[in-house]
Amino acid sequence: MAFTAADHTHMARALELAQRGLYTTDPNPRVGCVLVRDGLVVGEGWHVRAGEPHAERHALANAGTAARGADCYVTLEPCSHTGRTGPCADALVDAGVARVLVAMQDPNPQVAGQGLARLRAAGIEVAVGLLESQARALNLGFAQRMAGGRPWVRLKMAISVDGRTAMASGESQWITGPAAREDVQRLRARSSAIVTGVGTVKYDRPSLTVRPETWAHSDYGDAPLRAPLRVVLDRRLETPTDTPLLQQPAPCLILCDDDAAAAPLRAAGAEVLAADSSPAAVLTLLAQRGCNEVLVEAGAGVAGAFLAAGCVDELVVYMAPTLLGAGARPLARWELTHMAQQQRLVLRDLRALGDDLRLTYDVVPAP
Amino acid sequence: MAFTAADHTHMARALELAQRGLYTTDPNPRVGCVLVRDGLVVGEGWHVRAGEPHAERHALANAGTAARGADCYVTLEPCSHTGRTGPCADALVDAGVARVLVAMQDPNPQVAGQGLARLRAAGIEVAVGLLESQARALNLGFAQRMAGGRPWVRLKMAISVDGRTAMASGESQWITGPAAREDVQRLRARSSAIVTGVGTVKYDRPSLTVRPETWAHSDYGDAPLRAPLRVVLDRRLETPTDTPLLQQPAPCLILCDDDAAAAPLRAAGAEVLAADSSPAAVLTLLAQRGCNEVLVEAGAGVAGAFLAAGCVDELVVYMAPTLLGAGARPLARWELTHMAQQQRLVLRDLRALGDDLRLTYDVVPAP
Repeated sequence: MAFTAADHTHMARALELAQRGLYTTDPNPRVGCVLVRDGLVVGEGWHVRAGEPHAERHALANAGTAARGADCYVTLEPCSHTGRTGPCADALVDAGVARVLVAMQDPNPQVAGQGLARLRAAGIEVAVGLLESQARALNLGFAQRMAGGRPWVRLKMAISVDGRTAMASGESQWITGPAAREDVQRLRARSSAIVTGVGTVKYDRPSLTVRPETWAHSDYGDAPLRAPLRVVLDRRLETPTDTPLLQQPAPCLILCDDDAAAAPLRAAGAEVLAADSSPAAVLTLLAQRGCNEVLVEAGAGVAGAFLAAGCVDELVVYMAPTLLGAGARPLARWELTHMAQQQRLVLRDLRALGDDLRLTYDVVPAP
Repeated sequence: MAFTAADHTHMARALELAQRGLYTTDPNPRVGCVLVRDGLVVGEGWHVRAGEPHAERHALANAGTAARGADCYVTLEPCSHTGRTGPCADALVDAGVARVLVAMQDPNPQVAGQGLARLRAAGIEVAVGLLESQARALNLGFAQRMAGGRPWVRLKMAISVDGRTAMASGESQWITGPAAREDVQRLRARSSAIVTGVGTVKYDRPSLTVRPETWAHSDYGDAPLRAPLRVVLDRRLETPTDTPLLQQPAPCLILCDDDAAAAPLRAAGAEVLAADSSPAAVLTLLAQRGCNEVLVEAGAGVAGAFLAAGCVDELVVYMAPTLLGAGARPLARWELTHMAQQQRLVLRDLRALGDDLRLTYDVVPAP
């Protein structure tokens, strides 16, 4: 099937609808769906959150009997498994749609194509790959996890032009301006988990919560934001019980070497696990818990450990127009000796946020 | 006089002409001139290089008798002094122009306004300030020097995203790509002088010359490029006589504490001076030699000394998409201890050069 301009328009709309679930669908993927009959949009829907109907169900309900003979544009392959409401592929067949256009297959190689097969078996024309890269970008973490890998790891750092995060003393508030700090709220809100180190917890005393009241989030639907899991890498269990992190309604997981003395922290509301806190082990654990996107928001130690382990997929740098000098803290505690070891990046996005710049890089994996 | 849209168009053209002298007028300013009669451009000119006619003379010669009754758009106040060819203000009076529109006054406070007064005394209508900030930007160094200050100092650094210039060993070739390296040629070509340190000379062995054959410079006229003065800060006179710097046709000035042993370097073609090589003293010396724009192209030591002395006006950063780690060399050897000491910057220009970014910042002077 050759895709027409109208096909592109409708799939772009489906992606726009999918985007509304950016902050709420986790651990499910963000998915949008548009039903079109005789060139007119007769139904629209998007997945809002886990436990609620899939995008196709919303669009079919929205279209009613007008779905019969319609073209269905959906950003992810319709499911073929019997979940809470039966497979979406069957629902599309029952509704009598004529064609189904899919942006990307189910990223789980064990099930990919089964929804499509079900549609084709019912005599429905099916095409895959329309605006696929955009659909993939919306669910990078889900796709990576479903394909058997780790969550998508985004390392966020606020730095000066000379690559420093704070003075040697730790003094740092604030390098970046309010627009950049507000933007970090969006990174947190879309994340399944936020990983930090005990040093940051002890000295910066962050809450690491999503405070939607402080930012405009009209770009997504009305569903309440999820509270990402806050994860503290704290081998020797030094997290203070009175830290602001534990005075929030959001969940907190502390990973340590030995949980014998964990009772006070558990009483303070934390989940404490004795577990390997190396980056790879942490990511395996978070993938098992259904985390799609993980935000590393920490100091130079944790940032360096994740970079050194090859456990960063994306680097988001908020760069303030300032110089902090050579004695100030580095972006990451991570020592390289030869240019051949340098970590190359690919710039994916650049924008101004107030006086600061936000630079989003993909980390080039080691060959 | 209220400026019209046509006035803006003609002054913008005069600025475009002035720009053609970007790489050749030094130590004179870049100036362009347009003569317009009855809405038609009848003459254009720009200053090409010192010792040759000013922009107004070229435009008048280009217009011939059509200059009578014309409006003259000139980016800098016409001169009132008797140089090689008499004052340009008198030439405009003699040619019978009707109005003179000037972008900016002569930046030398001792003479500013005298050319304008001469024109007004002859009954010519005069207006100043049309596109003034653009005109000033074209001659930042000339204006700063004429106002009794130092040259405009541009510090150029090629860095990684984590603010590093090279591995600890000095290994660095190449962080940035060919487009960024070609762009540095343009920075050199517009500079009166290039300042470097003896460490860079000894270990990187640069030529610091302008090689116009390697870059497209169709944005300026046909006059041959000047060769900027290369200045080496070399207190103990360690510059090797066989350094590539001394195998170029361009002039080289070495500043040292004691020139008793300077004979071999002088024989190799260098000018050697025993002089204070602190940043402020170097800039005073270069201003006395008529330098408008100075490019500091050096390692972290010289960069740090200039920053610490408050002797940098502009920071040009070529940022490569890579991380070099915390052990790598800093942008500048310059230690600060409190956030209150941070050096704030203002982003003036940002562009992509191949895979790299060029960020041009104005350095905010200390209050």
